[in-house]
Amino acid sequence: MGEAKARGPYAKTPARRAEIVRAARDSFAERGYVKASLRDIAERAGITHAGLLHHFRNKDELLAEVLAERDSEEWQQGLAQVDSLDQLSPYLGELIRHHQKAPELMRLWIELAAAASRSDHPAHTYFADRYERGRAQFAEGFHDEAARGRLREGVSPESAAVLFHAVLNGLQLQWVLDQELDIVGPVKDFVRLLLERGDS
Amino acid sequence: MGEAKARGPYAKTPARRAEIVRAARDSFAERGYVKASLRDIAERAGITHAGLLHHFRNKDELLAEVLAERDSEEWQQGLAQVDSLDQLSPYLGELIRHHQKAPELMRLWIELAAAASRSDHPAHTYFADRYERGRAQFAEGFHDEAARGRLREGVSPESAAVLFHAVLNGLQLQWVLDQELDIVGPVKDFVRLLLERGDS
Repeated sequence: MGEAKARGPYAKTPARRAEIVRAARDSFAERGYVKASLRDIAERAGITHAGLLHHFRNKDELLAEVLAERDSEEWQQGLAQVDSLDQLSPYLGELIRHHQKAPELMRLWIELAAAASRSDHPAHTYFADRYERGRAQFAEGFHDEAARGRLREGVSPESAAVLFHAVLNGLQLQWVLDQELDIVGPVKDFVRLLLERGDS
Repeated sequence: MGEAKARGPYAKTPARRAEIVRAARDSFAERGYVKASLRDIAERAGITHAGLLHHFRNKDELLAEVLAERDSEEWQQGLAQVDSLDQLSPYLGELIRHHQKAPELMRLWIELAAAASRSDHPAHTYFADRYERGRAQFAEGFHDEAARGRLREGVSPESAAVLFHAVLNGLQLQWVLDQELDIVGPVKDFVRLLLERGDS
């Protein structure tokens, strides 16, 4: 029966792939991308090195999967639920606390973004596009607020978007270096700085 | 004569050390810290590998020197000349443009700060202290402005300092990924957001 093959060690099931990607994420986060090895990832996923190579040819492919997963899971879906900047502060507080549960991943993200700014880095296109899309998405939100007279005078939606992006990255970098530091309060202060509020 | 020895290949002159540190900075910036090698650094400095080892025992020692130099040269001295936030915007514009002349070094700084958040990284203490001192220095400045009624209502000097630090790091990260992006405009907007101005 065909099933015997599907159950074998090289079965390309989505579940198996997901396990490997999780193992890769943990390995990258703990050791850093450069020092992580396919052997370690295979071990964490409970498969052989050859088994892993059947699913992913190299570390770069795994990196792309790890990043794409973080995107879809944690950020894009959540932000899509924020339809006005009133909901932005609570959403950001929640997002940051969620990221703080995995400091290694937070560190990895910043480290990789910086490394990927080298044009020959395997994740260069990913990060350049990702950052540009992030800014465009924020700018769109700030345009809406500006149209409602809510964006503070003297700041363009584009500039607000660049600053907002900078604040999120910069706060996470400070926090991985000092995990006692409160960064949720400052991010809420920043939203208040950007928005004119009649009611506060 | 004693001079013969001082001129030899192992002369521990400050000039020779400075040359090696410059070579290390260039090598780290181009290749990243992990991939940079003592051999490459020695070659750039025009000395032998053994000659280099006479001055610095390993890459970590060189890293400490490179970071300390960037500190004293480019940041601390400049900021000490800013005695009120009126001068902050022009100073920041100048500082950012100065850093933009060496994108590789800018990238290296962020990459290392993130990597150094691992407590076993050779530069961990350096970056943790450096960031804490940076925030304390900014907070002091914002306290002065708050006392003059210039800091915008609803933001504490400490929170302003954390945000300010975040903005500087985050903008640089965005810029190394997209060197067409204007980050001087946004940083000036940010200073305006933080400060209440009667005259603007």
